[in-house]
Amino acid sequence: MKAVVLEAKKLRVRNKPRPVPSAEEALIQVHLAGICNTDLELVRGYMDFEGILGHEFVGIVLESQDNKWAGKRVVGEINLVCGRCVLCLSGESRHCPHRSVLGISGKDGVFAPFVTLPVENLHILPDSIEDREAVFIEPLAAALRILEQVHVREKDRVLILGDGKLGLLIAQVLRTRTDKVFCIGRHPPNLKILRKRGIETLMRLPDKKSRYDLIVEATGQREGLETALNFVKPSGTVVLKSTYAGKACLNFSQVVVDEIRLVGSRCGPFPPAISLLEKKAVEVKEMIDGTFSLEEAEKAFAEAQKPGVLKILLIP
Amino acid sequence: MKAVVLEAKKLRVRNKPRPVPSAEEALIQVHLAGICNTDLELVRGYMDFEGILGHEFVGIVLESQDNKWAGKRVVGEINLVCGRCVLCLSGESRHCPHRSVLGISGKDGVFAPFVTLPVENLHILPDSIEDREAVFIEPLAAALRILEQVHVREKDRVLILGDGKLGLLIAQVLRTRTDKVFCIGRHPPNLKILRKRGIETLMRLPDKKSRYDLIVEATGQREGLETALNFVKPSGTVVLKSTYAGKACLNFSQVVVDEIRLVGSRCGPFPPAISLLEKKAVEVKEMIDGTFSLEEAEKAFAEAQKPGVLKILLIP
Repeated sequence: MKAVVLEAKKLRVRNKPRPVPSAEEALIQVHLAGICNTDLELVRGYMDFEGILGHEFVGIVLESQDNKWAGKRVVGEINLVCGRCVLCLSGESRHCPHRSVLGISGKDGVFAPFVTLPVENLHILPDSIEDREAVFIEPLAAALRILEQVHVREKDRVLILGDGKLGLLIAQVLRTRTDKVFCIGRHPPNLKILRKRGIETLMRLPDKKSRYDLIVEATGQREGLETALNFVKPSGTVVLKSTYAGKACLNFSQVVVDEIRLVGSRCGPFPPAISLLEKKAVEVKEMIDGTFSLEEAEKAFAEAQKPGVLKILLIP
Repeated sequence: MKAVVLEAKKLRVRNKPRPVPSAEEALIQVHLAGICNTDLELVRGYMDFEGILGHEFVGIVLESQDNKWAGKRVVGEINLVCGRCVLCLSGESRHCPHRSVLGISGKDGVFAPFVTLPVENLHILPDSIEDREAVFIEPLAAALRILEQVHVREKDRVLILGDGKLGLLIAQVLRTRTDKVFCIGRHPPNLKILRKRGIETLMRLPDKKSRYDLIVEATGQREGLETALNFVKPSGTVVLKSTYAGKACLNFSQVVVDEIRLVGSRCGPFPPAISLLEKKAVEVKEMIDGTFSLEEAEKAFAEAQKPGVLKILLIP
């Protein structure tokens, strides 16, 4: 099969053998896949990954030992875990130290016509969710993770830094908890998607006196964290969503004196993400900025890297 | 009166006028004061403070408009707040943006025979607590702050980085919640104080496979934070206690991927600190490594800066 492969830091489309599912796995035909910022970072060298890229997808189960899955339209969680370690047994399986991660670490991804995943990772989709929406379930779950980690109160003023794919999903998710959600970004078309849904948008940094109870750093840039620190209230919370290669520098004495909480946040729960899409509580289709065939992967990646471009989809 | 003054980054003992209390303040005769790491950092340029240093003290109220205070032996909270802003009214007065801080920012401190403080900052001491213990109440409150910020469970494995003054207090405070408390330091006499109280001590970093649910960074060094990140469990918490001038650099992608919480922690509640000393639940007198007269302040500061030296007291 043709697949989008990262090898020696080069992206290329080449032939790979069709994967063979293990006893616990299903073979899935990928209908549609999404390019995530993490994919772009992987190409830049983050995690030193080599193999088939891609972790956002929707597809149909072709084969599995358990008959209940065959023919089902599914999305899949990206962490493949041992199920036996202390972290797995204590409900923190996404942090299993023995895990591989779909298209990110130790497991070939979904930018290919076929992929295998453990059936325990799969979620069956209701018919009311289109493929073009379902492909957003993985990043929407990552946005929902914030609600598991931080108690967002109705009175809280929330600022999202970044009007990229994840920033727009986070803004909409937090808007379900408080009407004081602000998003700062540089791309008018992206911000417009939020304004239509009652979220205030800013194109430049607010007055230094405007402080926020919660700031979500989703710029993908290392400078975002320092900005967050400038606008969070004393005793407030900064959620970190950006991953990048290398270190960032910060005035940690301010973190101590102002008693700021910095909370790293990664993958989240799929069921509430499916539920939000089912209820049409979150707008995702407007975030699609292009659809490419798998053979056009290089062009698709180039497009996805352009400033302001939101979701680019791949059809295997 | 003679006072220990920081001027143009120089420490000197010189004459200053005796302070005059405002209507809300008491005039206090200082019996005993303690040198804190923050005092050492202030001399190195942290906060650009100029004035009389010192914020850890015990003394006797000489004058106040409200008669109930006269003659009382007291300790005092260090944040002088407005009482009217949003943060004060929401119970976060230690973060009042209009605050001055005793001996740290905008308010002369306690390394002098007399000091003034608002009576609302004062706490009357029970007779069972000696002056040499009472002088530890402010840093002990700072250690107790951690229990207000982090839910420490009986099953948690806790590592304290640093066997300095604050590290030893924090270890003892956390030992009241879990018996799996470890402290890593470089000074055998300091660690011995903890071992006598059932706290495990280490002189070198543990095996990388030993991870902890909670790590408290109290080394005073910017390198401490990176060490903390190497030994915290995924989904674990790092409490930051060190303040220093300048920035520190960190691999924030690890914070995101492992979903670490970093929690800045500063001042804490006095009443439980007084209560712990009253119950003899915390050992502090063994931490006194020298007592100097105010005139010997330079010598006292030199002593306090020596590696491994714990609390140095000043008698005004």
